[in-house]
Amino acid sequence: MLKDLLIKNSTKILMVVLDGLGGLPVKDTKTELELANTPNLDSLAKRSALGMHIPVDYGITPGSGPGHLGIFGYNPLEYQIGRGILEALGLGLEVRDTDIAIRGNYATVERVNGRLIVKDRRAGRIPTEENRRITKKLSEAIREVDGVRVFFAPGMEHRVALLLRFPEALPEGSDRIRDTDPQKEGLEPIEPKGLNEASEKVAHVLRKLLEKIEEVLADEPKANYMLLRGFSQKPKMESFEERFGLKACAIAVYPMYRGLASLVGMELIDFEGQSIQDQIMALKDVWQDYDFFFLHIKKTDSYGEDGNYEGKIRVIEEFDKHLPELLELKPDVFVITGDHSTPSMLRGHSWHPVPVLLHSPYVLGGTSERFTERECLKGELGIFPAEKLINLMLAHSLRLAKFGA
Amino acid sequence: MLKDLLIKNSTKILMVVLDGLGGLPVKDTKTELELANTPNLDSLAKRSALGMHIPVDYGITPGSGPGHLGIFGYNPLEYQIGRGILEALGLGLEVRDTDIAIRGNYATVERVNGRLIVKDRRAGRIPTEENRRITKKLSEAIREVDGVRVFFAPGMEHRVALLLRFPEALPEGSDRIRDTDPQKEGLEPIEPKGLNEASEKVAHVLRKLLEKIEEVLADEPKANYMLLRGFSQKPKMESFEERFGLKACAIAVYPMYRGLASLVGMELIDFEGQSIQDQIMALKDVWQDYDFFFLHIKKTDSYGEDGNYEGKIRVIEEFDKHLPELLELKPDVFVITGDHSTPSMLRGHSWHPVPVLLHSPYVLGGTSERFTERECLKGELGIFPAEKLINLMLAHSLRLAKFGA
Repeated sequence: MLKDLLIKNSTKILMVVLDGLGGLPVKDTKTELELANTPNLDSLAKRSALGMHIPVDYGITPGSGPGHLGIFGYNPLEYQIGRGILEALGLGLEVRDTDIAIRGNYATVERVNGRLIVKDRRAGRIPTEENRRITKKLSEAIREVDGVRVFFAPGMEHRVALLLRFPEALPEGSDRIRDTDPQKEGLEPIEPKGLNEASEKVAHVLRKLLEKIEEVLADEPKANYMLLRGFSQKPKMESFEERFGLKACAIAVYPMYRGLASLVGMELIDFEGQSIQDQIMALKDVWQDYDFFFLHIKKTDSYGEDGNYEGKIRVIEEFDKHLPELLELKPDVFVITGDHSTPSMLRGHSWHPVPVLLHSPYVLGGTSERFTERECLKGELGIFPAEKLINLMLAHSLRLAKFGA
Repeated sequence: MLKDLLIKNSTKILMVVLDGLGGLPVKDTKTELELANTPNLDSLAKRSALGMHIPVDYGITPGSGPGHLGIFGYNPLEYQIGRGILEALGLGLEVRDTDIAIRGNYATVERVNGRLIVKDRRAGRIPTEENRRITKKLSEAIREVDGVRVFFAPGMEHRVALLLRFPEALPEGSDRIRDTDPQKEGLEPIEPKGLNEASEKVAHVLRKLLEKIEEVLADEPKANYMLLRGFSQKPKMESFEERFGLKACAIAVYPMYRGLASLVGMELIDFEGQSIQDQIMALKDVWQDYDFFFLHIKKTDSYGEDGNYEGKIRVIEEFDKHLPELLELKPDVFVITGDHSTPSMLRGHSWHPVPVLLHSPYVLGGTSERFTERECLKGELGIFPAEKLINLMLAHSLRLAKFGA
């Protein structure tokens, strides 16, 4: 329906995502946002539309994938991103329609009477440095199997991501392959087997790949094999531009969020440095080139996950200092929100609704004093599903025609 | 989706349902909850998540069945409970998958030229005492028909509930039988006829049953026949434990609510007495044995239906006095709500959203001063569909894993 109403114009929409923004009381019944000193956010909040979004559903704690899909305007229950895809994205691999992404574990195996037996499913949790060396060796030794390109990316300790890139787009269901991890030491790895015709073709390549991996790693004392899990394809989805008529770019530091943005077809902006200041510089550089800008700030979530509420507060305060610079760009619609809540007191993602600030010339405003959870509850946007945020951004940028006469 | 995320732990969830809780202004623009003196509820409300639930849909006034299904986590539009089932439950009959439940009316009939003619569709509204005597006579005389067990339970005046218990579970659609009530005096009762093969088997039993009923009641001056309506089967539904992983019990006095709880597979706790104090004693007795406790308090609704707002206020105040005792049990999640609103000024159920209080360590709190309709509107839960309450209870008891990576 939205698609039929789209209007092109030259407005610019800026969406800043402070990852894991929402919180719970941590000190004197105050949340991280309430404890933070944020004069610029407070001033903006007074003149903006505020509310809370529910990332997936009531009570549901989203991972980063569903969290971002929602605020990108894709129903996270409809579009589920496989584990392998997320792992690959998180480790910096680009994922295409022709690809099967896989999570790998380095493992220790031994031949006993000709049978391959798993001695350690995590190869003694080898150091990450060791992983990098071994993964480099594999990448150099194995570039393709039966005309299928193979990519490896090292993760932490024993973790690794793999990508098979086929010459052509794969039919749906090509990722229906059982994990090879037997889940217990002393057992044989499970042979990759497809659960349908398309996935059996992929499994055939995997069996050959595993033989090669075994050859290349034969001399390694610990990481001499690989167990494979989470086979997954890129979900079929319209690009952000097809769906919402917005030429979009992402200014993000971490591979996972760059990957999620690229999944929906946003262009990834490359830039030097990792600070919020660096990100804003990059934003200014490309401000003339796009309609929609996704700026992702990670550290609010990282500190939340560590239970470090003071760290989370510092990131919020740092962002607040940069706010005037963003306002100088005069975005027609300016949204500040999170992908989910990460209350420091829970040391992890949570199900709680996420504060939303939407600034445009077409808001009521005057409902709230600050940009906090409790003040957002008083706002004119109410509590609403994350996937509706795009509707509001399009409407406030006057990019939606009247529905019906 | 919820089912894939369930985590087992030892948390305890207490849900108190004050039947028909929500109200409207009755005096000095204040509602029953606002007029009630509730220091304990007020104090708890300040530290809790508040909101309102919509039992079925905007503007829809629910009966007790849909009202409870919603807060039990079953979409009331998806799971519709037949009239016969509700009547049977309300009169204390247990309902199984093998059963057909029926609402009956005692009626007066007369043979005219061999044809059975209905003279009074309600048998002159015989006194309830008379009903009890006649129903007992029927129960003793008719225990089975063609191997199908038959149960009767007397209602008020001319009303009676019947249950046919077949030896085996019945296929769906076995209850598709037309009512036998001709709706007008002077006409013949409609013969029970099945609308499909399965229901025709049931109708066959019913025809024989009606012959027997006519025989047994032949000497009765008024109630010498029975008209049958609302044939219904227990809806196919997963049990509360299968669906939500919670071992649940119900502490309720009235048969209807015990029946509704047993429909979703909650265990019914038997106890002496009928007061709130008696219910709390029973709750304490079984506190170690379950994960989820449904405590149903009826009188808020009864007084609301009578238009007796002072009575409704008294019940709320009585509950408030007992609140500290419930808090001493230290439930991990404590919810206080209603199944629907019963504003005294409307003397009946209404469509208005129902106040919800949810207490757990993971709430914002501090949004509201009291547990009233107007203060709940300021709360962090917003206005939400009743069937989402279970999501929130599971989340706040940390019984839901993260969705997606």
